[in-house]
Amino acid sequence: MHRKLFIPGPTEVRDEILKEMAKPLIGHRSKDFSELFLSTVSKLKKVFYTENKIFISSSSGTGLMEATIRNCVSERCLNLICGHFGEEWYKIALSNGKNADCVRVEPGDGITPESVREKLDSGSYDAICLTHNETSTGVMNPIYEIAEVINRYEDVLFMVDSVSSLGGVKIEVDKLGIDVCLTSSQKCLAIPPGIAVCSVSERALERSKKVRNRGYYFDFQTFLKFYEKSQTISTPPISQIYALNKELDYILEEGLENRFNRHKTMAEYTRKWALEHFDMFPKERFWSNTLTVIKNTKGIKVDELNKKLAERNMQISNGYGELKEKTFRIAHMGDLQLEDMKELIMIINEILGL
Amino acid sequence: MHRKLFIPGPTEVRDEILKEMAKPLIGHRSKDFSELFLSTVSKLKKVFYTENKIFISSSSGTGLMEATIRNCVSERCLNLICGHFGEEWYKIALSNGKNADCVRVEPGDGITPESVREKLDSGSYDAICLTHNETSTGVMNPIYEIAEVINRYEDVLFMVDSVSSLGGVKIEVDKLGIDVCLTSSQKCLAIPPGIAVCSVSERALERSKKVRNRGYYFDFQTFLKFYEKSQTISTPPISQIYALNKELDYILEEGLENRFNRHKTMAEYTRKWALEHFDMFPKERFWSNTLTVIKNTKGIKVDELNKKLAERNMQISNGYGELKEKTFRIAHMGDLQLEDMKELIMIINEILGL
Repeated sequence: MHRKLFIPGPTEVRDEILKEMAKPLIGHRSKDFSELFLSTVSKLKKVFYTENKIFISSSSGTGLMEATIRNCVSERCLNLICGHFGEEWYKIALSNGKNADCVRVEPGDGITPESVREKLDSGSYDAICLTHNETSTGVMNPIYEIAEVINRYEDVLFMVDSVSSLGGVKIEVDKLGIDVCLTSSQKCLAIPPGIAVCSVSERALERSKKVRNRGYYFDFQTFLKFYEKSQTISTPPISQIYALNKELDYILEEGLENRFNRHKTMAEYTRKWALEHFDMFPKERFWSNTLTVIKNTKGIKVDELNKKLAERNMQISNGYGELKEKTFRIAHMGDLQLEDMKELIMIINEILGL
Repeated sequence: MHRKLFIPGPTEVRDEILKEMAKPLIGHRSKDFSELFLSTVSKLKKVFYTENKIFISSSSGTGLMEATIRNCVSERCLNLICGHFGEEWYKIALSNGKNADCVRVEPGDGITPESVREKLDSGSYDAICLTHNETSTGVMNPIYEIAEVINRYEDVLFMVDSVSSLGGVKIEVDKLGIDVCLTSSQKCLAIPPGIAVCSVSERALERSKKVRNRGYYFDFQTFLKFYEKSQTISTPPISQIYALNKELDYILEEGLENRFNRHKTMAEYTRKWALEHFDMFPKERFWSNTLTVIKNTKGIKVDELNKKLAERNMQISNGYGELKEKTFRIAHMGDLQLEDMKELIMIINEILGL
């Protein structure tokens, strides 16, 4: 029996999309493929609110995090860290031989525009990496305020990991001046994992030309060469592109604002319950609309709860890393509906006797 | 209508495997996933004839080509080039800032053990890259003879791109002393694209530790860390792992020797026809068992032929790059049967009036 996933990825995938995954393959250098590519990219541009090019990568979002570092960091980057995925991006910068500094805050805290301004004033950076929504702590950073600060500085490329937010929360790439906005498929875009996409600005492409040692597989110049032929560098996950293209139809049919509101409503419902019975883990300023991380104030056994939920064909997530059992995580991403959250909460209440 | 693919990837995928692609997702940090991972890896070891570790990568084969370079080349590598994919690997070495030399032969020619010996005698290399089966020219290199030469030299890591051969031709990784053997899913393994796998020897892992600037996404040490937990670095293409695991059952049920013989029989049948009406493009010593590249001695219009084949729901490949129209390519990979080849050839004969 399938367990309904309330975890921060992979998320639930609707039956119609699973059927797309089962379609026979086509050649990736064929006209049919190029049409599929163009159609998918043009719909993605709407969801990204951008006129920039959108590259399709046969990798997870982590792969595109490495791509941003290899293509966009020449002198030194600044990593804004509020949890595991921010730490990972910093590690990626260092392991690729780049100079990198960071702003690091305590778990549950988020990145403030003030701290970014202070750091940018004190040092010289040519790129800045922000994890928009940190799934290890449930922190969503105030990207509009942070963007306003970053855009005051010249020649600082703004790179955003929106893996667990894009498609569930409004991120207007062009308006925010985001140079590279990357995401993957298995979160708010609600398709199976195995594909990642990113928007890339003209100035990021220009920067890329000048950065040495970019490699091949994640080289933006190679991406660009194939993009211009409506193709990908190597054989892409065609099944996931079928799925993505079709899911984008559902997303645009629902309407982006409606989709964002649905995520907000699900988040508010989950937070209300969390505050009634437990407490929120992140500071209020940083509450996320795609994931609720709950402080386990009652000392419940989260693993036990999850086992009992499994008997009811549902799954939530324990806390991440050191936050295991101290927190637990309920995701409300993608195609989940308020009714799903109500059902989940009802069953959790029943199990815990709340 | 779906066109049956006689192209060198993606190849035909059987219905039962397409159904696996449509299965609902599971968490990639769950016990269920670890069981799936272990089961898949243990079956892959049989197909690779190895006791080495097998890493699963969320990328195409090209991604793992980059991985070999970043992890295994410290001083200088030697690239054996007999076509496009060999050239690409060389480009990957250079674009990752590595020193690299090459042995390069004319299209249609293959790599000889003698040329490898000569080069290894004349220079100092710590790694050597061989494209086992070159799909741009239909050349299959004599890997057993080449391995014998390479194994006489100490500290030279032997890295093999078996993307278009593994699973269709016998490659005994351990017996051949292959340090990294990489392949992807959409060729002889006959599942949809979006996943790549490689075996990695202990000495390749040791080398990796000492090589600087390995990055993160393709770092063998990171792969290893997660391998030991029966997990992957980041969210993997779970659907393709379902498919791979199931297809490996079909492969082992058929029997590896039977599978290799079936590929040989299909190749012989196709070559016989090619020699009767056209000519073979590669030199006889290098004829491939997974792909036949035919010299277009009759000056037929390959694009026209493919259009007419499309009406009959079939597809072959034109020549690669500059060999377009001068050659054409018929793949016989994965789960195709002799009957499929007979049907294809019958229809081509009908179209061309042969």
